[in-house]
Formats: sequence, structure tokens, C-alpha cells
Amino acid sequence: MRRADLHVNDAVAILKRTPLTISALLDGLPDTWAHATEGEGTWSPYDVVGHLVHGERTDWIPRARHILSGVSRPFAPFDRTAQFTESEGKSLEDLLASFTDLRASNVAELLAMSLSRSDLERTGQHPDFGDVTLGQLLATWVVHDLDHVGQIARTMAKVYVDAVGPWSEYLSILHDRGPGGS
Amino acid sequence: MRRADLHVNDAVAILKRTPLTISALLDGLPDTWAHATEGEGTWSPYDVVGHLVHGERTDWIPRARHILSGVSRPFAPFDRTAQFTESEGKSLEDLLASFTDLRASNVAELLAMSLSRSDLERTGQHPDFGDVTLGQLLATWVVHDLDHVGQIARTMAKVYVDAVGPWSEYLSILHDRGPGGS
Repeated sequence: MRRADLHVNDAVAILKRTPLTISALLDGLPDTWAHATEGEGTWSPYDVVGHLVHGERTDWIPRARHILSGVSRPFAPFDRTAQFTESEGKSLEDLLASFTDLRASNVAELLAMSLSRSDLERTGQHPDFGDVTLGQLLATWVVHDLDHVGQIARTMAKVYVDAVGPWSEYLSILHDRGPGGS
Repeated sequence: MRRADLHVNDAVAILKRTPLTISALLDGLPDTWAHATEGEGTWSPYDVVGHLVHGERTDWIPRARHILSGVSRPFAPFDRTAQFTESEGKSLEDLLASFTDLRASNVAELLAMSLSRSDLERTGQHPDFGDVTLGQLLATWVVHDLDHVGQIARTMAKVYVDAVGPWSEYLSILHDRGPGGS
């Protein structure tokens, strides 16, 4: 395994493409897939896209600005379930369009920050963890994208948990996580 | 959770978009991501794309034809590691282009089969499992795509397993599977 330090260009290579990845996975899909869940208390692909939209608005870039501003108060806590009210009345296509637009402007703002190695070592106060660096925040933004791409794939795969018959044994994604995870 | 029966149109909705999803995830990415693994004995995103190419050539549609032909011998076993020789000398972009072309012609062939509900109940002999239905084969094709999308996301996420610092606790994808899984 390569355990890499964060480099802004490598992070941006993922961040800028996630809207295209998620749109490729979901845009125009029947509800069989887009509204499937892994069971009670778990999220559908539609819910995940709403969560990503909320993150673009309130989490990553606002926290990066917070660190660079040097203020000592902790970050505002992130609301992990805001999408259950914010997505109301919006179609999957509305949410994908919002995510695409917000991500493009956030990546542009990240690049405009022209972060140096020493900027990446600057710290802010996480409400749970205490000191975190800007580099850790940006690495988390990347991994958070990939985590939700994996979650969408896993949730859709489980629609066919019975339909695959004996092949279930070879399809490890069907055995990852039970209801209650997200 | 919705545990759906297989419907050809729902399956095709996923199958036809997987090349775009995988290309969106990987096309043009730095080697930091494309050649990362989860450790000894695990596959990189590059390896996964080679495996998907081999499946298009030898697994799904050939097995569907085999079932519809009514012959009683078992399917030829599928070589899960063929990509380690077949991908030699090929770039990631070569493999993505092959996967895209092969998948498009395989989906066209699947649609041209105009499968009825009773066709989906027809059986073939799997070398390990014995009787499997055409419907189970097609559901497995879909889940196999999503399994590898999830694997690519997980493998890339782990590049930043250290870089995320204390956020690791919130990023469940970093704790799925150890070296040795694929």
C-alpha cells in the first residue's frame, strides 16, 4: 500500500472529478437503484448526494477558510443528516446539478488559495478531535468523496443480494455492512 | 432494503454506464491513485480495469450464449488473474477504451437476445455451484461491476489512510478489508 502525504494537486485530481463520477453512477437511473437503501437507518444514493451538497456548502471550504483566518474557536459542527430536510422537493437531477456547481466553485477557491507546505500544517480546532491540520482536512475531503462513492456502489449492489443466487459467495460487496451503517 | 428480482432493463441501466463511471473515476489520474493497492496481494485500480476487460471477453456474454445454446457441459472456469499477463504493455487509457468498446457491444448483444421471463429461468452448469439461471448470471454481472467500483474507491481512499489524521475514525471505508482481499 502507498501511504501518501497529501499534495494539493493529487487531492484536486480526485475532488474535481467526483461530480462526474457520481453523475455517471446515478444520473437518470430508475428509482430501483437511486432510492434503494441497505435497510432501516441507512442512506439511499439520493440521500448521499444531498449529504455531499450540504458538505460543499458548510464543511470543507468554510473550514479551510476558518483555519487560514487563524481564529481560535472550534469549527461549527457538521450536520450529517441535514439532507433529510434540505433535499425535500428536489429531484436527484437537481441535487447532482447543485453538487456539480458547488464543487466546481469550491475547487476553484481551493486552487486560488495557492497553499504552501507550511499552510497545510496550519491547524484549527475540530469540535471532537481538537487540533487538526489543513492538510488533514483536505485529505478527509478526498476520502469522504471516495467513501460515499463506495457506499453508493454497495447500496445499489445489495438490490440484487438475492437475485445473484449462489454467486453471492464470490461477491464480497454484498457482505459488507449491515443495516444501521451509513 | 429493496431486494429486487432481476429485470433486464434495470440491469442494462447499470451495465451500460459502468465504463463511464470507471472512466470518470480513473481517466487521466496520477499513478499515486491508479497504481495504489491495499497491500500485498491486492489489486490496483489499473489491475481492476484489466480484470473487467477480461470478463467482457470471456465471462458474461459467452456464458449467456452457453446457457441459451442448451449444451450440458459446465461453463469454462473464469480466470480471475488473467489481467496480470493480458494488461502487460497497455496503458490505463488503453484498458479503459477496450472496456468501453467491449461493454457497448456486449450490452447490444444482450438487448438483441430479447430475453423473456422464461429465458431468465434457463439454467447452465457453473463449475463450482452447479445449476445457475441466466437471471442469476445477469444479476451477478451487475453486482460484479458495482463490487469493483467500490473496490476502486476503497483502494484509492487508503492512499490517504494516514494523511486524514484523527478523521480516520469517521471514515469507515478506511477500515474495510485488509491486505489479501480483492
